[in-house]
Amino acid sequence: MTYCVGMRLDRGLIFMSDTRTNAGVDDVSQVRKMRHWEIPGERIITLLSAGNLATTQAVVSLLDERTKAPSERDPSILSAPSMFQIATIVGDTLREVIASLRDDGQQASGGFRASLILGGQIAGSEPRLFLVYPEGNFIEAGDDSPFFQIGETKYGRPIIVRTYDPAMPFEDAVRLLMVSFDSTIRSNLAVDLPLDLAIHERDACRLGANQRIAENDPYFRRISEQWSLSLREAVNRLPPFQFADDESA
Amino acid sequence: MTYCVGMRLDRGLIFMSDTRTNAGVDDVSQVRKMRHWEIPGERIITLLSAGNLATTQAVVSLLDERTKAPSERDPSILSAPSMFQIATIVGDTLREVIASLRDDGQQASGGFRASLILGGQIAGSEPRLFLVYPEGNFIEAGDDSPFFQIGETKYGRPIIVRTYDPAMPFEDAVRLLMVSFDSTIRSNLAVDLPLDLAIHERDACRLGANQRIAENDPYFRRISEQWSLSLREAVNRLPPFQFADDESA
Repeated sequence: MTYCVGMRLDRGLIFMSDTRTNAGVDDVSQVRKMRHWEIPGERIITLLSAGNLATTQAVVSLLDERTKAPSERDPSILSAPSMFQIATIVGDTLREVIASLRDDGQQASGGFRASLILGGQIAGSEPRLFLVYPEGNFIEAGDDSPFFQIGETKYGRPIIVRTYDPAMPFEDAVRLLMVSFDSTIRSNLAVDLPLDLAIHERDACRLGANQRIAENDPYFRRISEQWSLSLREAVNRLPPFQFADDESA
Repeated sequence: MTYCVGMRLDRGLIFMSDTRTNAGVDDVSQVRKMRHWEIPGERIITLLSAGNLATTQAVVSLLDERTKAPSERDPSILSAPSMFQIATIVGDTLREVIASLRDDGQQASGGFRASLILGGQIAGSEPRLFLVYPEGNFIEAGDDSPFFQIGETKYGRPIIVRTYDPAMPFEDAVRLLMVSFDSTIRSNLAVDLPLDLAIHERDACRLGANQRIAENDPYFRRISEQWSLSLREAVNRLPPFQFADDESA
């Protein structure tokens, strides 16, 4: 499995992904699920992927190749004039890859499906964030749904739902995402450190801070430990429950 | 969907279940997912169910009928000598119901599968808690896995994993479960109030406190509101994150 989040903030976009991939619990390895393409100052594009690894790697390779071969018939994500058109290209590529595998009549145990989070900005336009489905269609983040998750999304969702604020600085968003990832990692073996983190500062149109949070990262460990303490404290500070005597059987 | 939790504490067993059932989002209704059987002072049995509603209702009806017809060939859960044998009866009944539906060749869109949490105590033995799979087999809770969840389990899991303590009084466990349910309800439409709550005090061998938490329950609402505030505070009190300048691209 996988866990990736892309989030829209007033200050730009922020992305976090884990790096664990597994084909069964006895075949676990580490792989990068976050890719960037940029023309510094003109456009920045980030792609997060969850699902069948062969599918997502093929999508990335195809997108990559098309940026390098200007004679290609298909437009490249580096030349498309809008993020909407880039999302269309990415969605079409994903659908093509899945369809080509299906045509062979082979079946992967988990299917060949994959989902993608695509975010970026082209100079002169707004930063935009999309969720691309295996069918190749996609939806865009807005004020009502300002973040997307893919992969093992449920464990880490409640904390984001409850504490997300579009006005938060990137530093606070990193902290929130780390808590969300830590909750997921503690509950599910299929998601694990290291994590990849990247930001797109609004209107920079280039890759901003971009780092890997390693397995032994001291800050992440502090967050994880203190979060456990804070939760226990927070539960203990809630108003005490009393059984309604008259309702007991 | 559904969300149910059964939890082993030093002081006995505690159960909570929601009451929402849906066949598609346009067919939502309310149904009790928690059932009790008791011979006060001799045995208490509680069953929580998730999955196909026709399946789980058939299982409950069959278990019920067998307790009322002493001439039945199959042993009743009210006469079986141990919780292990009761779990076997429940598992067999569940498997039978699912198999009988499958034999007809019909297919329900979500399948006929269901999972059950079974807990109880027979005088002279320990309280025991089981998770019964659709295949009819089951596992028992122990010190390493002291609680079971069925249905929409992921949203509410991290808070239990982090704050469960077998020594906690029932009142604290109720509060913790309410937080877990609230996290789930906020993230997923398929789980909702009212909630059913029941406890088995160790060695009482009768149903203990047992109440329904209504949709407008003022205590639940306070927990939900204060929990949001507490989480926001807790996130804000975490050590601040700083981008590593040397690693930015």
